[in-house]
Amino acid sequence: MRAQQMIATHPHVRGSTNDALIRCLEECYSCAQTCISCADACLGEQMVQQLTQCIRLNLDCADVCAATGSIATRRTGSNEEIIRQMLKVCEMACRLCGEECERHAGMHEHCRVCAESCRRCERACAEAIRSMAA
Amino acid sequence: MRAQQMIATHPHVRGSTNDALIRCLEECYSCAQTCISCADACLGEQMVQQLTQCIRLNLDCADVCAATGSIATRRTGSNEEIIRQMLKVCEMACRLCGEECERHAGMHEHCRVCAESCRRCERACAEAIRSMAA
Amino acid sequence: MRAQQMIATHPHVRGSTNDALIRCLEECYSCAQTCISCADACLGEQMVQQLTQCIRLNLDCADVCAATGSIATRRTGSNEEIIRQMLKVCEMACRLCGEECERHAGMHEHCRVCAESCRRCERACAEAIRSMAA
Amino acid sequence: MRAQQMIATHPHVRGSTNDALIRCLEECYSCAQTCISCADACLGEQMVQQLTQCIRLNLDCADVCAATGSIATRRTGSNEEIIRQMLKVCEMACRLCGEECERHAGMHEHCRVCAESCRRCERACAEAIRSMAA
Repeated sequence: MRAQQMIATHPHVRGSTNDALIRCLEECYSCAQTCISCADACLGEQMVQQLTQCIRLNLDCADVCAATGSIATRRTGSNEEIIRQMLKVCEMACRLCGEECERHAGMHEHCRVCAESCRRCERACAEAIRSMAA
Repeated sequence: MRAQQMIATHPHVRGSTNDALIRCLEECYSCAQTCISCADACLGEQMVQQLTQCIRLNLDCADVCAATGSIATRRTGSNEEIIRQMLKVCEMACRLCGEECERHAGMHEHCRVCAESCRRCERACAEAIRSMAA
Repeated sequence: MRAQQMIATHPHVRGSTNDALIRCLEECYSCAQTCISCADACLGEQMVQQLTQCIRLNLDCADVCAATGSIATRRTGSNEEIIRQMLKVCEMACRLCGEECERHAGMHEHCRVCAESCRRCERACAEAIRSMAA
Repeated sequence: MRAQQMIATHPHVRGSTNDALIRCLEECYSCAQTCISCADACLGEQMVQQLTQCIRLNLDCADVCAATGSIATRRTGSNEEIIRQMLKVCEMACRLCGEECERHAGMHEHCRVCAESCRRCERACAEAIRSMAA
């Protein structure tokens, strides 16, 4: 990802970037991909019927992460309250999805990796929220 | 849209649909399209420089609406808290985008129509939130 | 959807709309919603293991339709070749997903409705492609 | 991104991954972010009116890349023809957007970085297409 490099050259930003927010949006894109991948891998398991709640949370989390990544990328004009609220929903979606994936982590390696990805994104959202409050 | 027809046949729903939520997700898809269209029409205006905040809010609102529409569509397992929080962000994104579009409604017909679409989606989100509290 | 009303007021369009393309992009948004809903309803079925290919095609078709709907909405500048190629992929994705859903239509009403939605979107793409060749 | 790690643990893949396709889908996610960022940075420039075609191609390219990244992530069942066709549209969208960004690269650093990102994604798509033909 070139998010740092891109946002630093935005005409309204001029080098003074919010690094916590940039790390967060990169985690959002990464977590969206991981969640789509985990939903798909769960769907391929023989025991798919025991993984339907996991797939549901994966798909919802992917949608939230993708939207948050796009919105947190923009710097023209301002829409801070929406960014802040989306980061909160994203933090929660990642927490819930991460908790569910952790339940299957011993059985399915893709759930273990996805839980890690969700937890990283959850923390990155929390740090981005703090950085915007300051 | 066939959202009502589709969700009514979901194996966990079996005919007992939340109509306020279904109306809301249809408004979300419609508002996502309208906001992408308004951003694009603003971009085509000679006075685009006075419409950059409007384009920003349009694009953010489209992302929020699209994610909310997808998430509110799902009924397998449960993820109610995420739906509820997304509806709140969507209500706010539509309100802010609607207010900005209203400022340009006298000058640009696409902003007038988009403001209407945002206001309808804002109200539909509010009603869906109430229906889920009950 | 207000696609016709929005696009007719675009400063570069000024009333002279391509109605086949507008009908098509509305079907794309509708089909994206239907496919997400069908994937979710299939996931809720007891026999989900026999529906995994259907869910896969539903999710891919939803992604293609959503992207096609957004791209076909824009009128500023030009990107005709991309619109044309996306319409072709969308036509194919809808055909493949519609064929798969038809296999389960006797058993699952959501697959029957989704097959119809895919077939309508497939035809709308074909007509939009013809309208752009002219 | 953990795409390699995730896809290697998919039950139908079992370690035998198509590395060109995985590199490609990672470039797709990265290019989607870069294009959204470039559209937004162009919108913030004083000379935005000279960048409207660039913004248009950025937004279309972001939509194509995001859809291609999701579709290329899935391995359950099969949908190879759709992946192949989407890779071709994505290669073309990246080429057209890269060419347009290159025109502004001397003036705007964000266009220079975005052009690079598009060119990398274009090449990754070409290599993924070759890998799937084999």
